[in-house]
Amino acid sequence: MTPQTSTHTAINWDAFATELGDIETIRDPIQVAKLSKDYYYFSPILKTALDDKTGDLVVRPKTEAEVLQVARACVANRVPLTVRGAGTGNYGQAIPLEGGVILDLTAMNAVKWVKPGLACVEPGARLAAIDRITRPQGWEIRMAPSTYRTATIGGFIAGGSGGIGSVRYGQLRDRGNLHALRVVTLEDEPRVIELRGDAVQQVNHAYGTNGIITELEIPLGAAYPWAEVIVTFEDFMTASRFGQRLGSSDGIISKLISVHAWPIPSYFAALQTALPAEQSAVLLIVSESCLEPLGELVKEFGGTITAEKGAADSKGSALGEFTWNHTTLHARNVDPSLTYLQTLFPYDPELKLLEEMYHHFGNEVMMHLEFLRVQGNIVPAGLQLVRFSTPERLDEIIRYHEDRGAFIANPHTCILEDGGRKRVDRGQLAFKAKVDPYGLMNPGKMRGWMEGSE
Amino acid sequence: MTPQTSTHTAINWDAFATELGDIETIRDPIQVAKLSKDYYYFSPILKTALDDKTGDLVVRPKTEAEVLQVARACVANRVPLTVRGAGTGNYGQAIPLEGGVILDLTAMNAVKWVKPGLACVEPGARLAAIDRITRPQGWEIRMAPSTYRTATIGGFIAGGSGGIGSVRYGQLRDRGNLHALRVVTLEDEPRVIELRGDAVQQVNHAYGTNGIITELEIPLGAAYPWAEVIVTFEDFMTASRFGQRLGSSDGIISKLISVHAWPIPSYFAALQTALPAEQSAVLLIVSESCLEPLGELVKEFGGTITAEKGAADSKGSALGEFTWNHTTLHARNVDPSLTYLQTLFPYDPELKLLEEMYHHFGNEVMMHLEFLRVQGNIVPAGLQLVRFSTPERLDEIIRYHEDRGAFIANPHTCILEDGGRKRVDRGQLAFKAKVDPYGLMNPGKMRGWMEGSE
Repeated sequence: MTPQTSTHTAINWDAFATELGDIETIRDPIQVAKLSKDYYYFSPILKTALDDKTGDLVVRPKTEAEVLQVARACVANRVPLTVRGAGTGNYGQAIPLEGGVILDLTAMNAVKWVKPGLACVEPGARLAAIDRITRPQGWEIRMAPSTYRTATIGGFIAGGSGGIGSVRYGQLRDRGNLHALRVVTLEDEPRVIELRGDAVQQVNHAYGTNGIITELEIPLGAAYPWAEVIVTFEDFMTASRFGQRLGSSDGIISKLISVHAWPIPSYFAALQTALPAEQSAVLLIVSESCLEPLGELVKEFGGTITAEKGAADSKGSALGEFTWNHTTLHARNVDPSLTYLQTLFPYDPELKLLEEMYHHFGNEVMMHLEFLRVQGNIVPAGLQLVRFSTPERLDEIIRYHEDRGAFIANPHTCILEDGGRKRVDRGQLAFKAKVDPYGLMNPGKMRGWMEGSE
Repeated sequence: MTPQTSTHTAINWDAFATELGDIETIRDPIQVAKLSKDYYYFSPILKTALDDKTGDLVVRPKTEAEVLQVARACVANRVPLTVRGAGTGNYGQAIPLEGGVILDLTAMNAVKWVKPGLACVEPGARLAAIDRITRPQGWEIRMAPSTYRTATIGGFIAGGSGGIGSVRYGQLRDRGNLHALRVVTLEDEPRVIELRGDAVQQVNHAYGTNGIITELEIPLGAAYPWAEVIVTFEDFMTASRFGQRLGSSDGIISKLISVHAWPIPSYFAALQTALPAEQSAVLLIVSESCLEPLGELVKEFGGTITAEKGAADSKGSALGEFTWNHTTLHARNVDPSLTYLQTLFPYDPELKLLEEMYHHFGNEVMMHLEFLRVQGNIVPAGLQLVRFSTPERLDEIIRYHEDRGAFIANPHTCILEDGGRKRVDRGQLAFKAKVDPYGLMNPGKMRGWMEGSE
């Protein structure tokens, strides 16, 4: 395997755009710069590293045939190609490190079919738009990031890992949470490959480094009548234990269990009437049919329900927009010096390591937990808010967690393996060698490829 | 609290029946004897103990008003009253130890309303009949015993604990799996009490010793398009590990994971073409939409799919009728000397204690597992088939399990506390003291009551 690097510096982009015929292209530098970015600036490290990165040309195909045409042009001209959905990622997944074509797939947004428990969609379909079609049939996407209203399914699969719904269905990487993919290759003669079953893992969460996803078959979950609830507690650990117990309550159907230590609730301007000072807050989405047993559990833990919206009033999952990485967004709106971590605590119903970390870091690392299912167990993921001082201190905080058995998916790198994966994925690397022999796809993101090319 | 025992020996039953006016009664001794029994004979111990027990009069009310009228008559005459659904229990729950009235509630079988995720039903509604009404709306009862087609919801709540569906929703005792109950009391002036929230636990799984359930509000689960699958494995422990992993696979929607060591599959006459000799069999109900990822998991564990029925062909859950205690039924049809245990293994993804028991007892205790969720964790429950020799040896087997940390819900007793509960439930006992001051309800079944009366 001897990957070649791209040599696109001498490209005449106007000529290249012309070559693409009727396919929509954008050359306006302001538009191109905007469509070269995502929410990387949540990380001061990535902000510094990626601020000046931009593509040369945005291309917005409407069909798989057009994608094939773009692929052919990129291969012929040895032009890098970085795929993009709505650009709601947080690690620069969609930021082109070596310029070239930004392939914006938002115009390929059809929901092709819906069956009980399954849907076939194009990559640019927004998550909320898929639900609008499937919900009347009793189904919905199983999990979504807090950017649910704008994020695309292709971007979520290529760059996400889980979200609202993961407390029921685990993460995108779990077998059964992605059924099939069609991808366009960047070979000398680009073609379409269909991946099914475990074979989808070759492209799942690969940041678009090894194939352009043009169609996805995704499983759906049952669309319960979701209600939104805010519960507050005097202290954070009680709130956390309540979250752990609720997630483990097999008779109560939860979709979101999001725990916020004070002062994080103070950042949620729109929710202030339901968030008393000094209290930890738990933001919940549960089946409306389970509100009564939920109330009993709240009572058992001494919590207070400060807000409750029935399913009819909860359309659009408004409360979800204060959870997962929207929490970070709201906090940074108040204090832009804040950044965050992504931590997976080991399974422990007693939450001992969590408690230790909570007390150890105090106000420097503010606790924000999202409960999710990992191999059948309920565990808290921390999206802690960090008062950033220096990169060295940030590294020190990360190491302190890792040394004690907490897993950190570092959100301060745009390199695939340095984030959540930690190791080279041989299957993904081999697939890239096959479908992207010239190393044109999202160059600089896959460590395994770069090290192989040295 | 000084409970009084009944003194009904001098009752003139024809006069008593006349007193009940238009309410349906049955005096025919053969009918009364039949309606005094359940499936207690699965246990040789209970068979000996209960064979001669019978009621004096069967009463079959159609309304709560009629139930109140029967209650009044029983209290006035100090007559014992034993409530009965379809009589599909296995511990003599519905067998009258002191004669008296058998209150057959099968004629009170209305489904009063269905909302998303909730239904209100009368106690005599058969589980399958409830589903026939709720399924077209996308909902179904969350769990059911293998007697699903005949069992009533009232009987299941009063005498059952879980079943097909428990791998998703846990057990009936778990908060959220029973929302509300209406019960008629046997006080001097019988009345109706409504119990909601945690208060339902006062009557939940109390064998009808402390109130006549006349209405239930039960939660519903999403009606996935259920498919049925049989997977076979060379060895039992691989089959068990497959079951554990499938239950813990958050991306695959399972409703039933039932594992049978050879020679148990040989007892399933109707399934023989799918059950090769010497192989362990796993009987599954999973969402049809999950068959593809299930296939990958089967491959990983080296299993063989020997039968697969899509949702359209799986109506009525035929495969379920070889699982839970139907397994015992089929085995006893072949070898009536067989009996069984009910074992809950501690949570352990490595299944070490299970493996130890499997090897220790060999052919004397044949392994039959049903996976279920307990406080959020997937654990195997054993309904092992036991080659019965003596009561002493049966006790020895039970003790061997208990000494090593396996919990045994003894199916060889009709006493509430001596079965699965192990301790006197103060809440249930206090409720009985309130609503059944004369100790007329299903006398002889609640140890706490009997000990209180000594």
